[in-house]
Amino acid sequence: MRPVSIIGAGKTPFGVFPDKSLRDLAAEAGSKCLKNGSASPVQVEAFYLGNFAGPAFVGQNHLAPYVGAALGLEGVPATRIEAACASSGSAFFHAWTAVASGAYDIVLVVGVEKMTSQPTARVTDILASAGEVDGEVRAGATFPSLFAMIARRHMHQFGTRREHLAAVAVKNHANGAKNPEAHMRRAITLEQALNGRMIADPLTLYDCSLVSDGAAAVLLGPTERAAEFSPRPIRVLGAAQASDRLALAEKEDITTFPAVRKAAGKAFQMAGVKPEEIDLAELHDCFTIAEIIAMEDLGFVPRGEGGPASAAGFSSLEGEKPINTSGGLKSKGHPVGATGVGQLCDLALQLRCEAGERQLARANLGLAQNLGGSGATCVVTILGR
Amino acid sequence: MRPVSIIGAGKTPFGVFPDKSLRDLAAEAGSKCLKNGSASPVQVEAFYLGNFAGPAFVGQNHLAPYVGAALGLEGVPATRIEAACASSGSAFFHAWTAVASGAYDIVLVVGVEKMTSQPTARVTDILASAGEVDGEVRAGATFPSLFAMIARRHMHQFGTRREHLAAVAVKNHANGAKNPEAHMRRAITLEQALNGRMIADPLTLYDCSLVSDGAAAVLLGPTERAAEFSPRPIRVLGAAQASDRLALAEKEDITTFPAVRKAAGKAFQMAGVKPEEIDLAELHDCFTIAEIIAMEDLGFVPRGEGGPASAAGFSSLEGEKPINTSGGLKSKGHPVGATGVGQLCDLALQLRCEAGERQLARANLGLAQNLGGSGATCVVTILGR
Repeated sequence: MRPVSIIGAGKTPFGVFPDKSLRDLAAEAGSKCLKNGSASPVQVEAFYLGNFAGPAFVGQNHLAPYVGAALGLEGVPATRIEAACASSGSAFFHAWTAVASGAYDIVLVVGVEKMTSQPTARVTDILASAGEVDGEVRAGATFPSLFAMIARRHMHQFGTRREHLAAVAVKNHANGAKNPEAHMRRAITLEQALNGRMIADPLTLYDCSLVSDGAAAVLLGPTERAAEFSPRPIRVLGAAQASDRLALAEKEDITTFPAVRKAAGKAFQMAGVKPEEIDLAELHDCFTIAEIIAMEDLGFVPRGEGGPASAAGFSSLEGEKPINTSGGLKSKGHPVGATGVGQLCDLALQLRCEAGERQLARANLGLAQNLGGSGATCVVTILGR
Repeated sequence: MRPVSIIGAGKTPFGVFPDKSLRDLAAEAGSKCLKNGSASPVQVEAFYLGNFAGPAFVGQNHLAPYVGAALGLEGVPATRIEAACASSGSAFFHAWTAVASGAYDIVLVVGVEKMTSQPTARVTDILASAGEVDGEVRAGATFPSLFAMIARRHMHQFGTRREHLAAVAVKNHANGAKNPEAHMRRAITLEQALNGRMIADPLTLYDCSLVSDGAAAVLLGPTERAAEFSPRPIRVLGAAQASDRLALAEKEDITTFPAVRKAAGKAFQMAGVKPEEIDLAELHDCFTIAEIIAMEDLGFVPRGEGGPASAAGFSSLEGEKPINTSGGLKSKGHPVGATGVGQLCDLALQLRCEAGERQLARANLGLAQNLGGSGATCVVTILGR
């Protein structure tokens, strides 16, 4: 496998965009990315589109050639990858694999979701189809209720408290308030988070990520050709995808995700770095408890200590290991199929020292963790300057 | 790129299976394939699932890890690929790329669709989402009507007649009648085909492929390791995927598919063979006109001569170039996401001399052409003994 770099990155703001179609959003992010990488569409040799549920949200299937044509790509393999909330993380992983193994040089990856054209109840149903429908969903489970069970068990097993969950929300909202492209740019207090409307006990409104529209894109190429495209390419030091069972009932322990541990282990080994060497991370905080568990599964803190560490400022902008400096899914927004590539774009901003008000002083090594469903897919990527 | 072989193949019968879920079907095909390749699940390094519309047909999304777990795969990358009716052709193409470029050794590909649990009108709507929804579908188009327009234009431009279309149906039904795993094992007469109920003029019921349940699987590995798994491995001599615009209105000429020509050109070049050297082919006869156009786009016959050649027996079991000896989508059945890999399984049967009553005397080189939508995706694969 040869070294691969991100040679272009671009995204739309995340939010509610009634006047933009799924294809508009995807084309906007893809075009920004090509421009950022000084590349023309004819240079792109293959196209990977991460999208979770376009057919259900907007009625259009067969999305990869549809978006590809809007971007001016002519005839190249155009492929949609679906892996629940890890759809574009997975699309990136396969694109990276293809470039790293020499199948192509220049590959474009776009992630997109257009969610806000559906009413909330329908969005909840569509999202639930990423869990086990025959078991969990038919029994009444939604994603908030699945993660509420996970949170309850984490509380029982490790003494995690609602204040710990709320601390994650407060931090991510504070970061998102500094991100001009975040969906909800509003700082909140711990009291607000604790007194939020209950969604699925113990998760309040502030423990849940947002329903958003948005798209994100990266352009990949062999590191040896990166200078042709970008003055500030980002090296992909490690990338791995892993899987697990869908149903919580089939897992040995619901307070840890084997797919996260497995993908992280491979990515760290490939990159030759340790968790403590990572400067910043974009973690999949679909719910606050998910960020806490990810911190533990990635080895940033010992098991059971994610909650107290969050409350102590470990992961804040000024902390030892800044997490979700973009605002995360909680505040930046969570257009499901765009999230994985969106994380990479946000890491690239920090690594390129273009993160504005939330720029970190030390940003050499970044990690992205993109989770699908209640942990059945995970993609972990490690980026370096 | 290193040589790759199909080292295992297995499929379910195609048909109507009210007692089998999507996961049951996929697991059945996958297990048969692993057994055929004398492989255990722990040897599989990555899993690719081709599926068009599981979320719409059966309500379950995030299908790759769900099916993977049922097959006993533990934690490996499990990825769903969606490319309309070319979903599993595309899944195969990406799996082949990964093995050919050295990313993995042993990779499993499954294609599956479970369609018959929905009423016909709903099936028609779901299939239509592979066309351009904002333009064609909102204007009332269905897939039969899109291909009816294509047929009309082919008739206008080349003098193709309804008798030519019907000849394709008669041939494929005759072949399917000899296939114990075909959905509709019934020979029909030319008169029956011509007098079939009109679906979308000029296409009658007998010009349209079937709505089926089914799954198909192949196991891939580097050719140098093939003997570890199979006494009769099949070499993948060429494989290519190409794309085009979705909407018919955006195409220069609707009587030819650029994505087919492009994928075929690449696959022939890679294999170092010419169209006339191909012994048999499984072509994507979603409608009879699609088989006729595919014959032309692949260079089996000159443009405009697909109809007369079909009527003259060119593509029959005893003809110069047998096409769809399995019965094709018309008679074998068309569980959309299973079709691409199903074609490869059927070619493998012929190349291994295991095709029973429909076995050809000469079956050294086979070609599969898997089409997505009204031509926006195409995968062409060339297999050899």
